[in-house]
Amino acid sequence: MTQPSIAGIGAHVDREVTLRGWVYNSRGSRQVRFLILRDGTGMIQCVGGLADLGEERFAALAALTQESSVSVSGRVRTEARAPGGYELILSDFALLGASEDYPITPKEHGIEFLLPRRHLWLRSRKQHAVLTVRATVIAAIHEFLQREGFLHVDAPIFTPSAVEGTTTLFEVEYFGDKAYLSQSGQLYNEAAAAAFGKVYCFGPSFRAEKSKTRRHLTEFWQVEPEMAFADLEDTIVLAENLLEFVAARVLERHRGLLAGVLERDVAKLEAVTAPFPRVHYDEAVARLREAGRDFAWGGDLGAEDEAVLSEQFDRPLHLHHFPVEAKAFYMAPDPQDPRCSLSVDVLAPEGRGEIVGGGQRTDDLAFLEAQLEKHGLPREPYEWYLDLRRYGTFPHSGFGLGIERTVAWLTGRRHIRECIPFPRLMRSISP
Amino acid sequence: MTQPSIAGIGAHVDREVTLRGWVYNSRGSRQVRFLILRDGTGMIQCVGGLADLGEERFAALAALTQESSVSVSGRVRTEARAPGGYELILSDFALLGASEDYPITPKEHGIEFLLPRRHLWLRSRKQHAVLTVRATVIAAIHEFLQREGFLHVDAPIFTPSAVEGTTTLFEVEYFGDKAYLSQSGQLYNEAAAAAFGKVYCFGPSFRAEKSKTRRHLTEFWQVEPEMAFADLEDTIVLAENLLEFVAARVLERHRGLLAGVLERDVAKLEAVTAPFPRVHYDEAVARLREAGRDFAWGGDLGAEDEAVLSEQFDRPLHLHHFPVEAKAFYMAPDPQDPRCSLSVDVLAPEGRGEIVGGGQRTDDLAFLEAQLEKHGLPREPYEWYLDLRRYGTFPHSGFGLGIERTVAWLTGRRHIRECIPFPRLMRSISP
Repeated sequence: MTQPSIAGIGAHVDREVTLRGWVYNSRGSRQVRFLILRDGTGMIQCVGGLADLGEERFAALAALTQESSVSVSGRVRTEARAPGGYELILSDFALLGASEDYPITPKEHGIEFLLPRRHLWLRSRKQHAVLTVRATVIAAIHEFLQREGFLHVDAPIFTPSAVEGTTTLFEVEYFGDKAYLSQSGQLYNEAAAAAFGKVYCFGPSFRAEKSKTRRHLTEFWQVEPEMAFADLEDTIVLAENLLEFVAARVLERHRGLLAGVLERDVAKLEAVTAPFPRVHYDEAVARLREAGRDFAWGGDLGAEDEAVLSEQFDRPLHLHHFPVEAKAFYMAPDPQDPRCSLSVDVLAPEGRGEIVGGGQRTDDLAFLEAQLEKHGLPREPYEWYLDLRRYGTFPHSGFGLGIERTVAWLTGRRHIRECIPFPRLMRSISP
Repeated sequence: MTQPSIAGIGAHVDREVTLRGWVYNSRGSRQVRFLILRDGTGMIQCVGGLADLGEERFAALAALTQESSVSVSGRVRTEARAPGGYELILSDFALLGASEDYPITPKEHGIEFLLPRRHLWLRSRKQHAVLTVRATVIAAIHEFLQREGFLHVDAPIFTPSAVEGTTTLFEVEYFGDKAYLSQSGQLYNEAAAAAFGKVYCFGPSFRAEKSKTRRHLTEFWQVEPEMAFADLEDTIVLAENLLEFVAARVLERHRGLLAGVLERDVAKLEAVTAPFPRVHYDEAVARLREAGRDFAWGGDLGAEDEAVLSEQFDRPLHLHHFPVEAKAFYMAPDPQDPRCSLSVDVLAPEGRGEIVGGGQRTDDLAFLEAQLEKHGLPREPYEWYLDLRRYGTFPHSGFGLGIERTVAWLTGRRHIRECIPFPRLMRSISP
C-alpha cells in the first residue's frame, strides 16, 4: 500500500492508500462522518460510514478533534463536489497524536491572539497559501536571475559599518567589540560585481525601525542584483522583467489559491507586463500636488505619497531621478541634471508603494569621497569600498527587492507580517 | 556590434565584438601584446599587434596595468593554445578606469595580507572558482529539495532563546530588550513541518565560537530540511541522496574548474554515490580506539576523531546513534536502546569531518519536558515548541547541512574562510 501525498492523490484514483496528517475539520451525522485531512501538501475529504466501520470505530472517528494527527486508509474516488476533487472512502484509521482544545478554531481570531500562536497559525488555510506563494516567489527570483547569467554571491550579515545611515542599526556584541546587522548587501555586491560581472545576494536584512506600520518588519528578506557595466536603464529593464516573470509564475502555479483561498483579484496580476510606466520625480511632485498633497521638491516620498501615485496606474511603476539628497550617498548623480540621482524605485500598484529601490552607483572616486564627507560618514570603514573606484572603476547598477512587500502585493495581504513565516516586529520576536 | 560575455564568446567566432572587463594579466614583445581580459564570466586572451594598432595605441595597450577596466573590440578566433580556446584580435580598445599599484599581484600572498583585501581577492582565479562552485551547490540544493516536494520556509534570525545551549550565542540589543541570533532554524522547522509536511530553511546561522579552527566561521550558511512523519532512516536516505546530487551537479558543471584551477582530484568526487557506509557510534568508538585514540564512550567526536574515521572511507559516512547526552535536548532516544539517540552526522571523506548533523526529533511531550529540565533550559520560551507535541504530535526528522564545509570539501579548500564571499571570523569582520 503506497503512502502518497494529498497533492499527488490524483494518481491513485480507485486505489487503496494510507495517508498521514492532521484533522482540519470534522462534521457529519449519525450515519456518516466527513473529515477534512491536511498533510501539508493539500486537503482531502475522508468519508467514514457507520456501516463500514462499525459502531465503536465510527464513534472513535466522530471523537477526533481538530489538529489530531491521524493515519487514514481507504480508497480514493473522484468526487467533483469535494474540495480538491477527490475523496477517500475510509476503511480504517488510527489516532497518532491527540489534540485537546486546539486554540485556533474555525471562528475569527484577532491578530493579537494569532501572532503569539504563529507556530500553529501557519497550519491555517490562508497562511498556508500565502507562504506557499512566498516559496514560489523566491524560487522564481533565483530561476530568473540565474537564467539571466547572475551568480548568487552572499553578502555578509555582520558589518562593521552602516550602509544607509546609523539610526536604524541593530548592534551586536562581537567578542568585546561592536558589530552591526546588515541593512543591505549593496556595498558588498559592488565588490562581487567587479569579480563576477552580474551577481545577486539573497538573505535577511535588518532595520531597527521604530515605525509600527504594516510595511515594516525588523527582519525582512531581500534579493539584491548588481551588474557591472550597466546603467540606470539596465536596472529599470531588469526590475520590470523580473517582476513580470515572478507575477506570471505565481499566476501559473497558484491561480486557484489566489482566487479561491486568498480572494485575490487575479486580473490585477495579469496586468503586470513590462514595460512598466515611468514617472520622473519632477512629474511625481506635480502629480502629488495635483492630487492635493502638500509635497516639497527634494524629499523622499512617504507611504501616503506612494499610495496616491501607485493608485494612478494599473501595474507597477518606475519612479526615477530622485533628488541626490533623497537617496543614499553612493547613488550616481545624473550628468545631465546633477540635482537628480540615477535612481529608481518601483512602486507596486493598488496603493501599495515601494517594493524595489535601486539605480546606478557612482563610479567616481572624488564624488564618492565628497559624499562620505557630506553625509558625515567615517572614512576608514569605507576604504575598501573606495578601492572599487581606485582599481578599475566601472559603471554599475542594481537594486534591492523586498520579498515580503512583494508577497503582500501579489497575495493581497494588507500587512507584511503575514508574508514571512515568523515575523519579527518591534514588540514581538516570539515564537 | 554585439556585447557578449566571455563565457558566451564561442557563439561569436569570426565576428567583431566589444567586451568590457578588467586586465587580468598583460605580457608581450615589442611587436605584439597578449592581454588576458576578465569580465567576471570568464577570461579571454586579447592579441594586439603593433602593425594593426600603430605605435601610439600599441604603447597605450602595453601601458595598461593589472585590474584596469577597459573596453576592447576585435574579431573572435578559435585558438586552441589560448586559455578557454578563443582569442580576440584587437582592433581597438579604451581605458575606462585606471588601476595603479593593484595590491594583489601574481606572486604568492599570505592569508594575513589577503583577508583584509577580500573585496579584491574575489577577483583572483581560485577564489572566483570556489565561489562559482558555491553558487552551484546552493542552486543544486534548492533544486533537489523542491523536486522532492520540500517547501522553502524561512526560519527567523532573531530568537528569544537558544536552540543548543547558550555559550555560543550572539546577543543583540532589541528595543531595550535582548534578542539572540539564530544558531539553527531547527525548532521553527518543526512547526513548519506540521503546517507544510516537508520543509527546508536556508539562511545564515551564527555561532560566537572562540575556536579559531579552519572549520569555524562566526557566520555561516546552512540548509535545514525537516520532514513530517519521517524517521531516522528517512533522514539518512535524504542526506545521502542530496549529497550525491550536489556532488554530481558540481562535477557536471565545473569539472574543468575543479581539476584545472583548483587542482582537485575529481575521482574523489566521482566516488560520492549513495548509499554511504554507516557506522554506529559504538563501532566508531571501537575504530577510534583501534586507531590508537583514547576515546571514552559518551561524548561527541572532536575534529581529530572525525578526521581519523573519515579517512577510513572513500565517500561520506553516516555516523549514527550518538549517546543521548552528546546531542541536543530534542533528539529522540532509540526505543530499542535508550542510551542512544536517533541521530546521525555525515562526515565528509578525506579527513574532513562533519558536514551534516540531524536525526529524528522526539515527539513525546513528557520526554521533551524532562529534557528541558535536565538541560537546565527555561520552560517559558519553549512553550510554543511544546505545543507541537500537544496538538497532534507526529514523528519527524531532518538535518542541517553546512554550506561552507560542503564547499570546502568539494573544492578541496583547507579552510572554510575561502568558501564564503566575505568570511566573518572571531578577529575579522572587515571588509
